[in-house]
Amino acid sequence: MNYCFGCGKDNPEGLQLKFHLDETGRRFVARFRLARRFTGPPGHAHGGIIAAILDEVMSKLSRLRGVIAPTVELKVEYLKAVPLGKTMAAYGWERLVRGRWHYREAEICNPAGEVLARARGKFIAVDPERIMAKFLGNGKPAN
Amino acid sequence: MNYCFGCGKDNPEGLQLKFHLDETGRRFVARFRLARRFTGPPGHAHGGIIAAILDEVMSKLSRLRGVIAPTVELKVEYLKAVPLGKTMAAYGWERLVRGRWHYREAEICNPAGEVLARARGKFIAVDPERIMAKFLGNGKPAN
Repeated sequence: MNYCFGCGKDNPEGLQLKFHLDETGRRFVARFRLARRFTGPPGHAHGGIIAAILDEVMSKLSRLRGVIAPTVELKVEYLKAVPLGKTMAAYGWERLVRGRWHYREAEICNPAGEVLARARGKFIAVDPERIMAKFLGNGKPAN
Repeated sequence: MNYCFGCGKDNPEGLQLKFHLDETGRRFVARFRLARRFTGPPGHAHGGIIAAILDEVMSKLSRLRGVIAPTVELKVEYLKAVPLGKTMAAYGWERLVRGRWHYREAEICNPAGEVLARARGKFIAVDPERIMAKFLGNGKPAN
């Protein structure tokens, strides 16, 4: 069961993003079309939703590295408004790994390839057992 | 009709954040309790939702300044996971205004006053007529 707001297939109210590696094998891509519930400015995506998508596509890089690495820092630049109801693409790639620190970048582009928003993220690789105990330890799902 | 994902009372699937000024008259506050659909790590909020809340509470400062000022840049630091289903508080205040540029800060705290996440935002005051024409001009609501 995956109830993640960003990529959970079991969360009907989430973004339900689906990711794949592009032809380089180093960059994750998600194509998405945002529903009206994600409105910020009229007809366009909320800034927090843009942040969620950029965070998600960068987080996917952890799969390639075989790590669990929560986001420590996220910096988003909003260049142009992201329209709802149209297919856009998000890309995420690695910039640098230094010890446990993973530095990544991401973009959201329209079909013409124009960059509408971009982000840098800093992630930290954590002990999988410790983090599982932390998040699953209390056993009480929130509602 | 306000369908904003962050603060729209007409968006039943949004965050439905409500803001008020605190006793200083300079800081906006929102108390919130996140539903399960906003899951990131099990039992805790998605990083994008945290970004959305911080962005929202900083955006509210535009009311005090009488400006319309979209977010240009948002930097979020994730210090501790934000639990779902418990009442948390978000605070937003002004740091600096320089010409059209508005610099603001925000925090999310638990009831003990511990800071779980914090943000800095850069906003730009825009011509209200121009921005309305841009966002409402096409007249086609997204679905």
